[in-house]
Amino acid sequence: MSELRKDPIVDRWVIIAAERGQRPSDFKTKPEQPRSEGCPFCEGNEANTPPEIFAIRDSGPPNSPGWRVRVVANKFPALCIEGDLARSGIGQLDRMTGVGAHEVIIESPRHSDDLPSLSTEHVVEILATYAQRTCDLRRDDRFRHTIVFRNYKAEAGASLSHPHSQLIALPFIPKLVKEKLDSAREHYRRKERCIFCDLLEQELALAERVIYRNDHFVILSPFAARFPFSVEIYPLAHAHDFVEMDSAQQCALADALQYILQQYKITLSNPAYNMTLQTAPSTLPRAGHPDYWGTIAYDFHWHLEIFPRLTKMAGFEWGTGCYINPVSPEDAAEYLGKQSQPARNDQP
Amino acid sequence: MSELRKDPIVDRWVIIAAERGQRPSDFKTKPEQPRSEGCPFCEGNEANTPPEIFAIRDSGPPNSPGWRVRVVANKFPALCIEGDLARSGIGQLDRMTGVGAHEVIIESPRHSDDLPSLSTEHVVEILATYAQRTCDLRRDDRFRHTIVFRNYKAEAGASLSHPHSQLIALPFIPKLVKEKLDSAREHYRRKERCIFCDLLEQELALAERVIYRNDHFVILSPFAARFPFSVEIYPLAHAHDFVEMDSAQQCALADALQYILQQYKITLSNPAYNMTLQTAPSTLPRAGHPDYWGTIAYDFHWHLEIFPRLTKMAGFEWGTGCYINPVSPEDAAEYLGKQSQPARNDQP
Repeated sequence: MSELRKDPIVDRWVIIAAERGQRPSDFKTKPEQPRSEGCPFCEGNEANTPPEIFAIRDSGPPNSPGWRVRVVANKFPALCIEGDLARSGIGQLDRMTGVGAHEVIIESPRHSDDLPSLSTEHVVEILATYAQRTCDLRRDDRFRHTIVFRNYKAEAGASLSHPHSQLIALPFIPKLVKEKLDSAREHYRRKERCIFCDLLEQELALAERVIYRNDHFVILSPFAARFPFSVEIYPLAHAHDFVEMDSAQQCALADALQYILQQYKITLSNPAYNMTLQTAPSTLPRAGHPDYWGTIAYDFHWHLEIFPRLTKMAGFEWGTGCYINPVSPEDAAEYLGKQSQPARNDQP
Repeated sequence: MSELRKDPIVDRWVIIAAERGQRPSDFKTKPEQPRSEGCPFCEGNEANTPPEIFAIRDSGPPNSPGWRVRVVANKFPALCIEGDLARSGIGQLDRMTGVGAHEVIIESPRHSDDLPSLSTEHVVEILATYAQRTCDLRRDDRFRHTIVFRNYKAEAGASLSHPHSQLIALPFIPKLVKEKLDSAREHYRRKERCIFCDLLEQELALAERVIYRNDHFVILSPFAARFPFSVEIYPLAHAHDFVEMDSAQQCALADALQYILQQYKITLSNPAYNMTLQTAPSTLPRAGHPDYWGTIAYDFHWHLEIFPRLTKMAGFEWGTGCYINPVSPEDAAEYLGKQSQPARNDQP
């Protein structure tokens, strides 16, 4: 079982998921495997994944063909769903048992499908699946936060090329999420306003870093973007939790998401990218778990972060937590904001 | 000129160093260039770098052959040494002019040299050069912090394979450094002890994560290591600032550094790695710049961080600031602590 350990200097939890018997020679670089034969995520190969946790189906019983979106446990989970959450110390050091959930959301039965060219209805089903799994895992008292993310291509950390996202439920609120929550709470405490709403209002008025906008969402090129062509997608109306979207909002998010991924494909020659969903954590006051975040973070404003993997982290970034971005966010907004292709919803 | 921008949510400064006219097509992946012909860092090619800022020489005037270690400005600097430090706001957003220093420490006149196989005396000269440049830049009132780092191989961000380190002086204390300083200060406030000294004492007593130790330094496999086989090198005696090392300590650090880099080479088949030097900032009380760090951080304990680039950052890490490490720090200590080669100081 894996173990959670806290860095005592910077208060950062790390998952130590040591696979048994792994040796230094196991870290030789492996080539990408784009082959589709034998892909465990393809329709017909359901027996090669752990059992189905959830699916949206046209037909058939669980673990058989006939699905459109399918969720299974990760075969090599970073955290384990079984077991009690136990905390212990070693002198000044803190650790927890590696309890959590690690699921894979298989986005299509077809290996060669790609998010930007799916039908909008299909993307809405994927987003609804993110919400369904998040809500279900929030019922587990051991977990404090759930993160949904998508790694596209091997350079971004994907080990299989079949379209999929992942979800990890954690027994703690991670460092970066806590920083964002703290910042929103502090701003609200002083001003009784949402810091994200304030920033969105300014960005919409300046219009220098707005890439795309529809009825419910806006895509921004962040003012202090860490990476070239990184974007953030925000709901225009204040909302702390993405699971509360209605169907019109889900359609609008699918539209925005497909817009930017299609723009990446065209403008940046189909780059690897990472996407992460930043939403309020599930922490409600619970017996035995009182903490600072014992209230719902209504002051947070959920959003998606996406960035292509074009630059490399190097010593400067690792040593400072500061970044060097070689493309101005205004130039990035201009490139990504240009409508470069009329039809986005054609099947490949 | 580049610009510094602050992320308003997580208080992180980003360097926007937009090169003029850079377009999305410039971000196609470039192959590594291991060739030595025409390398601007090789002896004899001094005219192909910006003018020499500092050198340790056997003979010859500046910008001619005869040097052992040579420092020049980075030809493509992230920050610019000329200009005033000006702060301004755009509504709620903060920015500064991109003033700073970005230097390259060329570690040897020979292209094929490598840090672990240099003579110890030569490595001491490199370490002394880090200190000389740091002290010199601290005299500049515009700068608050100086970071020395080393990127080895293209996967770790090196654009030239000739052995070199880099140094960046910043007009702010970067986020990660500030977190470490805050943590040390808070511990000292409560206990009147150094948090790093406390942790070192415990690690030396447990002896589970000690990789190597000499008279003045210890190499640890960190308890909550983010990456497989990452290490930290600490002076055994409390010291807040690496520039205060005496020559015995410099020799001992050179020995420890060469030990671990040689172990990486053997155990992990010569991997790419990053090294960063974490030392107290230069901030002294200055007219016009009062701030929280207006005192010397005697409560800090300087150290080196080194890690091989074996795993990939993916959506989970980017979205949470949390990491998944597939090798237990105890296993890493065991692999890296084994003496696998008797002589380390033979020239190649």
